[in-house]
Amino acid sequence: MITKFTYGKPFQTDAVVNKVEAQQGVLPFLKVEEKDGKLKFFYTMKDQEKVYGLGENVRGINKRGWLYKSCCADEPTHVEDRHSLYASHNVLVLDGGEETFGVFFDYPGIITFDIGYSHLDQIVIHLEEADADVYVITGDSILSIVKQFRQLIGRSYIPPKWAFGYQQSRWGYMNEKDIREVVEKHRENHIPLESVYMDIDYMERFKDFTVNQERFPDFPEFVKEMKEQHIHLVPIIDAGVKVEEGYEVYEEGVEKGYFCKEKDGKEFVAGVWPGKVHFPDVLNKDARKWFGDKYQVLLDQGIEGFWNDMNEPSIFFAQDRMDETFDAIAELKDKNLDLETFQKFTGLVGSLANNTDDFKKFYHNVDGEMIRHDKVHNVFGYNMTRAAGEAFERLCPDKRILMFSRSSYVGMHRYGGIWTGDNKSWWQHLLLNMKMMPSLNMVGILYTGADIGGFGADATEDLVMRWTQLAMFSPLMRNHSALDTREQEVYRFDHVDKFRDMLAIRYGLVSYIYSEYMKAALGSEMYFKPLSFVYTEDAFASQVEDQLLVGDSVMMAPVYTQNAEGRYVYLPEEMAMVRFRSLTDYDTEILPAGHHYVKAGLFEMLLFIRPDRMLLLTEGGEYMDQVEEDHVTALAFVKNKAVYQWYEDDGMSKNYENSENYGTVSIEKDGICTYEGSRKKTIDVKLL
Amino acid sequence: MITKFTYGKPFQTDAVVNKVEAQQGVLPFLKVEEKDGKLKFFYTMKDQEKVYGLGENVRGINKRGWLYKSCCADEPTHVEDRHSLYASHNVLVLDGGEETFGVFFDYPGIITFDIGYSHLDQIVIHLEEADADVYVITGDSILSIVKQFRQLIGRSYIPPKWAFGYQQSRWGYMNEKDIREVVEKHRENHIPLESVYMDIDYMERFKDFTVNQERFPDFPEFVKEMKEQHIHLVPIIDAGVKVEEGYEVYEEGVEKGYFCKEKDGKEFVAGVWPGKVHFPDVLNKDARKWFGDKYQVLLDQGIEGFWNDMNEPSIFFAQDRMDETFDAIAELKDKNLDLETFQKFTGLVGSLANNTDDFKKFYHNVDGEMIRHDKVHNVFGYNMTRAAGEAFERLCPDKRILMFSRSSYVGMHRYGGIWTGDNKSWWQHLLLNMKMMPSLNMVGILYTGADIGGFGADATEDLVMRWTQLAMFSPLMRNHSALDTREQEVYRFDHVDKFRDMLAIRYGLVSYIYSEYMKAALGSEMYFKPLSFVYTEDAFASQVEDQLLVGDSVMMAPVYTQNAEGRYVYLPEEMAMVRFRSLTDYDTEILPAGHHYVKAGLFEMLLFIRPDRMLLLTEGGEYMDQVEEDHVTALAFVKNKAVYQWYEDDGMSKNYENSENYGTVSIEKDGICTYEGSRKKTIDVKLL
Repeated sequence: MITKFTYGKPFQTDAVVNKVEAQQGVLPFLKVEEKDGKLKFFYTMKDQEKVYGLGENVRGINKRGWLYKSCCADEPTHVEDRHSLYASHNVLVLDGGEETFGVFFDYPGIITFDIGYSHLDQIVIHLEEADADVYVITGDSILSIVKQFRQLIGRSYIPPKWAFGYQQSRWGYMNEKDIREVVEKHRENHIPLESVYMDIDYMERFKDFTVNQERFPDFPEFVKEMKEQHIHLVPIIDAGVKVEEGYEVYEEGVEKGYFCKEKDGKEFVAGVWPGKVHFPDVLNKDARKWFGDKYQVLLDQGIEGFWNDMNEPSIFFAQDRMDETFDAIAELKDKNLDLETFQKFTGLVGSLANNTDDFKKFYHNVDGEMIRHDKVHNVFGYNMTRAAGEAFERLCPDKRILMFSRSSYVGMHRYGGIWTGDNKSWWQHLLLNMKMMPSLNMVGILYTGADIGGFGADATEDLVMRWTQLAMFSPLMRNHSALDTREQEVYRFDHVDKFRDMLAIRYGLVSYIYSEYMKAALGSEMYFKPLSFVYTEDAFASQVEDQLLVGDSVMMAPVYTQNAEGRYVYLPEEMAMVRFRSLTDYDTEILPAGHHYVKAGLFEMLLFIRPDRMLLLTEGGEYMDQVEEDHVTALAFVKNKAVYQWYEDDGMSKNYENSENYGTVSIEKDGICTYEGSRKKTIDVKLL
Repeated sequence: MITKFTYGKPFQTDAVVNKVEAQQGVLPFLKVEEKDGKLKFFYTMKDQEKVYGLGENVRGINKRGWLYKSCCADEPTHVEDRHSLYASHNVLVLDGGEETFGVFFDYPGIITFDIGYSHLDQIVIHLEEADADVYVITGDSILSIVKQFRQLIGRSYIPPKWAFGYQQSRWGYMNEKDIREVVEKHRENHIPLESVYMDIDYMERFKDFTVNQERFPDFPEFVKEMKEQHIHLVPIIDAGVKVEEGYEVYEEGVEKGYFCKEKDGKEFVAGVWPGKVHFPDVLNKDARKWFGDKYQVLLDQGIEGFWNDMNEPSIFFAQDRMDETFDAIAELKDKNLDLETFQKFTGLVGSLANNTDDFKKFYHNVDGEMIRHDKVHNVFGYNMTRAAGEAFERLCPDKRILMFSRSSYVGMHRYGGIWTGDNKSWWQHLLLNMKMMPSLNMVGILYTGADIGGFGADATEDLVMRWTQLAMFSPLMRNHSALDTREQEVYRFDHVDKFRDMLAIRYGLVSYIYSEYMKAALGSEMYFKPLSFVYTEDAFASQVEDQLLVGDSVMMAPVYTQNAEGRYVYLPEEMAMVRFRSLTDYDTEILPAGHHYVKAGLFEMLLFIRPDRMLLLTEGGEYMDQVEEDHVTALAFVKNKAVYQWYEDDGMSKNYENSENYGTVSIEKDGICTYEGSRKKTIDVKLL
């Protein structure tokens, strides 16, 4: 059951699609305090109580023991003591106390969540203003609460099926030649590849919706050339619009008043990649439509996918602060720079980027009302991506367009996915990648993944190999890295054949991955689930934060430690282990419930199949169009009877609800397999 | 066996105390390449070969899979992709290939160690110049190789016994009042405490060997007052000497020519805490003596311990670079700060600190020869601490003085310990703390520990609790934190009683810790050992990087994960587990060899006792002088007979080699205990 409580006059974020009437009376579970125009909520946790949620964030699946903050920020260093990453997902589900319940704070400003940070057993949630809709959700399990919440916020974004292929990106692909080389190297080594990303250098001086003519002399022709090789190009779109006379987007935006403005009506000037930029006022619905329509210029050139970046929005500096900083620095010259003076110097420079005080300098025009940015900061990226999503509905209503964003807020999951931003080539970020996935699923973000190999810092071959294994089930499976870091396309390393074998497994798994994704999206379910969400009676399950259930059949337990030749795995029930070396070379073993140490060499990937479940394997391919799904192998662990509901569609159109999309595979103990559905299937059974 | 090979004309670092004649002929194991005045060494690793060593560094006990660098640096962010921390310990031991061997590159300049970074199976070691002594050590085990190496480099530093007590530090204790409060809070809560550290604010404007008169009006009296409460004050000493007319150390150093100079003979000016400083030329033996003698001013006021900081040396900026930077920044004003221009701006600021190009601007006078700093950079901190150590030998030859350093090089272990520098309040740094300990022991650094609770970032109560447990056996057991971070003295948290109980265990363990430390120091042994060094026939032991053997009897296996209620433990042989809640409240269990999941709640510390070994427990105390060692309890796990060699001395003087320092405790299977030695002992036996 969902109950809603309204405090003050909340900004309408449109996070929720199913309107709920606000209740009067006392908020259950939490103590509320309204003071000095701010709202605080209090809760005392039991010793063994777990706190799940907060979507994209640092630390564990169980969020106890830290102070988290919703304040979307361009944050390239996801270390443990960060409080906020790029997103604001103000959802918690508490389990293991007196009652299991969820709570969603629909509030677009800055919130802090002290979850056992100040005191081990205390939660204190602090809203900067006393205007918020608070939804309390009860149900008989975590999953039922999550499902109710997901139904409240609407269906998750569904990408085209090709977006489940293996994708390659790097900040530094400068021109056609660079991209061609990446494609060629994959194809000549028979490493699967589905798409190549175009980071900021494809644009003309970082201007949105432009293509650099020198680097891409005939862009539509190049897009076509790539498509002939079954490669989709995915350009980046930044939030800031370059201030430049003669640049159409800039001039139009100024003319129509569609950029964010300062109090006096002048456009706010921030510095990002192009230097001076204005931010499109995507909270203004006319401006949102205008900005969204701009994507057409690239759609018209054959583009079918985009990633929206820098949309927290990222501010390298506010121009006025930068000007003051130059003067303040000049004043320090010739002084003895002792601790205090030198800290003043470094402080001046250090406070330029993403300074929350600058959020108070500009405004949004929401239905004629000027709203200061800091009060709605956390819905900017969401609305930029919504601009695109709403535009695609208008511009190509029958076609799926790939779309994911860096920044997000609850509700954005309807318009696109996210990638988890600028991670690093760190082993600990493999683990963080895994821990983030279920909390993102809780808020409806299903199409997601981290940069394989790590964005910042230099990767090693073993890191990229283990990360490829860990990302085997990530809907967004993309290798991406930053300028000036070690090149990490998998063909750069010594064991190219091993990467080919590993990535072939992805294409073998694609029927399962796509089917499970679609069922999760259409049914408001989680695709990645912590063990404790499913094995609710298992006292140990909540201790496991390095294994996940993927869909209905599989448990993943990747190796995430350098030089490890295996790992500990906890099985809440008997399972069949599969140790893959390639799509055709694997061994299997039935393991009893309990703790195990399991070997997994660098080129081996572990997965586990639950009892009376199966995993469908295709014969793979080097790109999605090549994958043949009418002939599959079912790896089945049958105790009594395994039944699998198989979702399939054309992967392009939006005819999701067609009953012909569903088929049922049943496998008996003796291996007899039946398929019920509208398609013709040949299914080989391999009993485990 | 140790063989030495000399390339070019190496700088004499005095790392080695037992002179070895250089061999002619071909270096074993490694391929050598001398080209363009640089030296490279090559080695191909077998698949299962392990690489140990490199002392203070990031990443695992097995160093495979990264590019390490010896370039001592003030490095406050010990993330995985750092290449160098504060030290240079150019020692590797390879095991698991065709032959087990060690190699030490005695070279004070910058070296890189590519250990499977560029190619998984390749080691490439690169010296900036072709002048080095290379020692190759062979033996029948890792421990025999380490022991030979340790004998080569001389006996490890031995601190006074009180330095094994629990110590408290924070950058931010400003005056007598602050320190008194820390002491009072510990004493009134009966939390053990041995010493309080004085970070940079005790000085007068950060001038070495001064005490701020306003903050400490009668310092000798205050030192005395603290001693009456059994508290030792430990002041910090920085490498840089403030440039200030009238400041004696500065004026004397200039007059005598004892500071590092530029090519033209002017003193090199760097910026550190006081602003402009000169560096004492501690590589010049006259200057070293002069600087060392300065410690007397504090010894005379009753001080018995020091920590040497900022001695990589840390350079916030070179004054000439800073001057240029002001001008270069001024030139950027009013430009459009696009990607390139803004990166120029941030690059200017970012390249100020510890810029290796600045190392080429100043020189050392070594026996009359001017040697450019970059060529000997890695021995600066070592020689600063050597200055102090040599001075203490002159000034108080019969007394042990506590001394540890931030920067170090092989050989410095004779003069002091180290702390592992500016870590963070991160869970991953608990694990890093543990992994660093054995590699430091390999290079003779026995007196060491990390900042408990983490220096930078904000700690949580559970982090500090788990870290206290992890540091239970660290010789240097110090809680330390940075200015502007959350206060983390243990009395600040909710469960003060639990911290008191935990720290009481330290004082209960002190007989064992001290005895094992002394035997390791006197016998050139390791105090902390990885499992694979001892269980050489156990194929799994080298996979275990989160457990350590401590001395001869104990295996530690701390919990280092937030919200974990236990952990996996691997036992290479049957062991007795002890789960401590306090010195008197613990439970025990005999566990068979193999893999186990073991519970350990937040306030429980695990340790394991090996078969036929024992652990001595005193009744504890609130400071070392209070600990009564004549009546102890022996926790013994006896299969046949447990024998323990117990080292004891007065803890102050240097009469280490006295045979009366050794006693032997024997416990038979039936619990009958005998003590042979010169002391009178009452030993209660608790058979496990």
